[in-house]
Amino acid sequence: MTNTASEPTETDESVTEYEAQLNKVLADTDETAAGEDEVSLQLPSLGLSRRDFMKAGAAVGTIGSLAGCAGVMNNGEGNSGGSQNHSGSGDVPEHFVPPGEHDEYYGFWSGGHSGDIRVYGLPSMRELTRVPVFNREPAKGYGFDDGSSQMLEDAGGYTWGDSHHPSLSETDGKYDGRYIYVNDKANGRVARVNLKYFETDAITDVPNVQSVHGCCIQSPDTDYIFANSEFRTPLPNDGRDIDNPDKYVSLFTALDPESMEVLWQVEVDGNLDILDTDKDGKWALASAYNDEEGVEIEEMTKNDRDFVKAFNVPAIQEAVDAGNYREVNGVPIVDGTKGSSLNQGDEPAVRYIPTPKSPHCVEVTPDGKYGMVAGKLSPTVSIIDIEKLSTEPDSSKVIVGQPKVGLGPLHTTYDDRGHAYTSLFIDSQVVKWDIETAVNSPKQSEEAILGKIDVHYNPGHIQAVQAMSTEPTGDWLVVLNKLSKDRFLPVGPIYPDNDQLIYIGNDKDDEQGGMELVSDHPVYPEPHDAIFATKDKIEPAKTWDKSDYKGEKEYVTESNSRVDRVDDETVEVYTSVKRSEYGLRDFRVKEGDEVTITATNVEGSQDIVHGLVVPEYDINIALAPQDTREVTFTADKPGVYWVYCTYFCSALHLEMRSRMLVEPRD
Amino acid sequence: MTNTASEPTETDESVTEYEAQLNKVLADTDETAAGEDEVSLQLPSLGLSRRDFMKAGAAVGTIGSLAGCAGVMNNGEGNSGGSQNHSGSGDVPEHFVPPGEHDEYYGFWSGGHSGDIRVYGLPSMRELTRVPVFNREPAKGYGFDDGSSQMLEDAGGYTWGDSHHPSLSETDGKYDGRYIYVNDKANGRVARVNLKYFETDAITDVPNVQSVHGCCIQSPDTDYIFANSEFRTPLPNDGRDIDNPDKYVSLFTALDPESMEVLWQVEVDGNLDILDTDKDGKWALASAYNDEEGVEIEEMTKNDRDFVKAFNVPAIQEAVDAGNYREVNGVPIVDGTKGSSLNQGDEPAVRYIPTPKSPHCVEVTPDGKYGMVAGKLSPTVSIIDIEKLSTEPDSSKVIVGQPKVGLGPLHTTYDDRGHAYTSLFIDSQVVKWDIETAVNSPKQSEEAILGKIDVHYNPGHIQAVQAMSTEPTGDWLVVLNKLSKDRFLPVGPIYPDNDQLIYIGNDKDDEQGGMELVSDHPVYPEPHDAIFATKDKIEPAKTWDKSDYKGEKEYVTESNSRVDRVDDETVEVYTSVKRSEYGLRDFRVKEGDEVTITATNVEGSQDIVHGLVVPEYDINIALAPQDTREVTFTADKPGVYWVYCTYFCSALHLEMRSRMLVEPRD
Repeated sequence: MTNTASEPTETDESVTEYEAQLNKVLADTDETAAGEDEVSLQLPSLGLSRRDFMKAGAAVGTIGSLAGCAGVMNNGEGNSGGSQNHSGSGDVPEHFVPPGEHDEYYGFWSGGHSGDIRVYGLPSMRELTRVPVFNREPAKGYGFDDGSSQMLEDAGGYTWGDSHHPSLSETDGKYDGRYIYVNDKANGRVARVNLKYFETDAITDVPNVQSVHGCCIQSPDTDYIFANSEFRTPLPNDGRDIDNPDKYVSLFTALDPESMEVLWQVEVDGNLDILDTDKDGKWALASAYNDEEGVEIEEMTKNDRDFVKAFNVPAIQEAVDAGNYREVNGVPIVDGTKGSSLNQGDEPAVRYIPTPKSPHCVEVTPDGKYGMVAGKLSPTVSIIDIEKLSTEPDSSKVIVGQPKVGLGPLHTTYDDRGHAYTSLFIDSQVVKWDIETAVNSPKQSEEAILGKIDVHYNPGHIQAVQAMSTEPTGDWLVVLNKLSKDRFLPVGPIYPDNDQLIYIGNDKDDEQGGMELVSDHPVYPEPHDAIFATKDKIEPAKTWDKSDYKGEKEYVTESNSRVDRVDDETVEVYTSVKRSEYGLRDFRVKEGDEVTITATNVEGSQDIVHGLVVPEYDINIALAPQDTREVTFTADKPGVYWVYCTYFCSALHLEMRSRMLVEPRD
Repeated sequence: MTNTASEPTETDESVTEYEAQLNKVLADTDETAAGEDEVSLQLPSLGLSRRDFMKAGAAVGTIGSLAGCAGVMNNGEGNSGGSQNHSGSGDVPEHFVPPGEHDEYYGFWSGGHSGDIRVYGLPSMRELTRVPVFNREPAKGYGFDDGSSQMLEDAGGYTWGDSHHPSLSETDGKYDGRYIYVNDKANGRVARVNLKYFETDAITDVPNVQSVHGCCIQSPDTDYIFANSEFRTPLPNDGRDIDNPDKYVSLFTALDPESMEVLWQVEVDGNLDILDTDKDGKWALASAYNDEEGVEIEEMTKNDRDFVKAFNVPAIQEAVDAGNYREVNGVPIVDGTKGSSLNQGDEPAVRYIPTPKSPHCVEVTPDGKYGMVAGKLSPTVSIIDIEKLSTEPDSSKVIVGQPKVGLGPLHTTYDDRGHAYTSLFIDSQVVKWDIETAVNSPKQSEEAILGKIDVHYNPGHIQAVQAMSTEPTGDWLVVLNKLSKDRFLPVGPIYPDNDQLIYIGNDKDDEQGGMELVSDHPVYPEPHDAIFATKDKIEPAKTWDKSDYKGEKEYVTESNSRVDRVDDETVEVYTSVKRSEYGLRDFRVKEGDEVTITATNVEGSQDIVHGLVVPEYDINIALAPQDTREVTFTADKPGVYWVYCTYFCSALHLEMRSRMLVEPRD
């Protein structure tokens, strides 16, 4: 079997609808706060046809503005979109979770460039907690105690990250509640969050890559973690080949889910984007753009097609095992570029599937049959038949359907009844369509479309509950809108995003295909994606289990609270912590000492968390019940420093203090 | 007039109720996850009377545990407290804000040791945004661009803070929507948030103090910002007097609200706590504890009374103007200790008002008549008649009422109908009472009590809408509960707090005094206080106004995007930013160069924010429309670095890139 890449058919549509939108853009930009002379967004009245728009590589600055503006403005009528159909009306179940009752689902949001994971309850859409991952976060003392500080330091020493795609670990295709894995687009890293403690426990700085975008576990058993490097860079990126973009490379990386070590990488053409796997442990599918391998936007968007990369994981592992790779910075790199000999034959390492045009995502259906590739600059979704990846030698023929869904399709999600839901960035809509109808109807047709609903505004990722596992439940869907514009009270020039909750449990035959907008939720910038699990899938610990750190750290009781002077410049301070009392009422060190404080929260009751702060020393750790943390610093300022607790823990919380006495050296 | 401090009457109650609670504590601690041997919270069955409990300085470790446990466990029945009376029932107005509609109130929450301010909408209780203040926050690039980084560096270089008490600026006793001021308890600082941009624009590291706790503006015209230093430390704290706690001092500080410079300080006895002012610009009232001036908890809680400090601001200013101070670290310090001559005569600088016992807060009524002091370890609220501060020489007689409200009273807030609402930390309740009835009934009586409502669990601050101004509106009240325990899906050993929304618009004659619990909201640790304003009070900018930075920073247009080499080791990069394009497609620097990037978002449309990231260089700035930011770094790693945008801004967002080419030096 070989890769035969034939040209996909391109859409050719009336310009009327598009020009109407454009006119709206021109009208609406009058609301700008800035002088026209310095704002280059006032668009000329272009005589572009849709086809011209899609192909207009040469005027791409305008295209970018257009694409954004059209989207922003498409729902400029503002509040009309939602208020008539919020919860309580009709047969939408109650989404309000009364005081004391629990949500039905956990939602795990990537925080984007806030660098964290956020945990929500559904359907209430309340934020239950945040898990700092790539960011230092004082509320949980993350990046402040020795352990988490060292982990961040070992992972490159960066103080932030750009988390996009959280992926829940699976066993037998079902979420097993053990881990979340997530990428850092800014620094080429992958992190793991331990769901026993809702805490980041590992970060890997992936060698040879600058930016990790797509990231997911391998279904059905989390045997690998996969990570796409989006940016093409010299290999290694040490100053060589700066001016030879044709030598830049993009890599697909596999990590071990337990050790978090990098196992191998695969070099491919184009910029890798988002990623999903089949449900059988064979194929990993990555969307990609810029197969042109340009360095400027006109070059990147020049061609009418790009290529989804389908990675044959067993074949790649076999190549690695056979020593069929080169090694760079200690990592085996398999050649998966289009012309590679490894891509020929019956078990190609990487297949190149042609899709229109700069597509943005691949999401595999819960049954594992199809991978959906949203067109972004094409109004279509291409349906890849995953079985055909192993049987059909003509790469263009693995695409078995291509419904025309609307402008700017970005992401697709699923219910439990054979429907797909695709976000339309430019149209600011979600379109619901029937998967098998789309497979059985002509490409570019709208036959499979069941309805569209307006969202507010410019949706990116959408996710329905449990849709990334084999067990979708099909009642709720969340749309992560990039813009909120007029939806909330204004909060200055950096607006929240708008996550909208849509009920999808009804298959009514109406314009919206039964979808109903339930609620709007302002969101701190800038989540990219989310993943939902029923509440029974996640079983976190309520207090720490000290056997998880036994041997690494001392469990400090009240009776062994003490100060150990190691040498003239080193002091170890051990203190228990409980309501209103540190085990040490005070402790004495000398100016210039390196001080390590080891502190244990000896409380047994859930929810009794304590802090340990050394004022004016930038020291701040958080101690959940039964947890022990260490923090090391230099006592370089003589004086009296009142150690205090940050978690309001009892009526005598204010009086809960210890004193660090730093004696002057001379 | 002189200060005459007479003993307040002490409560003497039946032990029955208290012992019943204690037994519950003992039963409930069996749920601990830890082995009993190492958890010292299993309480002995004490034969303590309430009076013993209040006085038991010697067994204070136990007291602390007790106070906390009793509170935690008091509502151990879990979900029974709320689900029966959520919104929709009876005459509570709808709190759900339908999609596209706006909230009625802004709420500004302190973030506690997360270091930020959080902005909510009421009654939906949705988080609209967060404003980083003392913390570095990558989502908004705060602490990453040169301007905010330098501000944080100049304010001590700390990477976090502990924000407790946000105060809205006022004109004529009404919120004017200009600024929020907030303290940093961890490092003795005061910050200002500019509400045009919802951005921190000033932080002052207050000299001579270690910890700023209470912080507020002076009503009615924000002529001063006041800040209480809670911890007593040597003056200056440079290694002297470490072992002479009697020489430690606590200071009350006044800052200029515009320049944010420290104007003067007042030395007082005891630990200053929370703060409010009258409505006439004369008195600032600070609660205080540890008038014993002990350094250990047994000493701090030994006496049956502490002293509220009433600062006579004109008298203090007069002393400063007359040169009646000593200067330490450039700050005039007025002697306001109890024995000071400045406190004698008809216009004492500081009055010492005796209140039982380790009280926690002062909140002044909207009409400016009374200051309420919650007893914390006394079950009472002491009502200070503010007019009497100027007319009544006997300090104990300025307390004109003292209703018995319940266990662990911490904070009081107000509606527009003469009612006060006090949080009861240990009882886990809110009590509603009538102010004038309390003034006209015997001290220690319950005659003024109108009803109590269970909250979940252990409330700290409570705030009703607009209650800190002269214009309370009296419909909604928020209770900031410290513990959430069983109220939400579990998220690991660090639990969210629980902010509860209570409707207070009905004065029904029922057990709850008409109060109705409407909704529960999990909250990331750990807000301490909040302040609410009607939506018309706040008018933020929708884009930046470049005249606000003209002269300080260049507005970079597409046509003046450029690279200026200053010398062999310094490069200035100027680039415009708009949808899908940086003004520079690439820029070239040399290894080791100090690079300053100046970037302007030239968009005019609201909500079109862009980022500018340099991967693997820890560079990350956020640019709202019309904003310009600068960032400086050393280009110490040769190679190709793909500058990209973090805010998903158009359909060509992924292609929006520039290249930084770092040439090797040799």
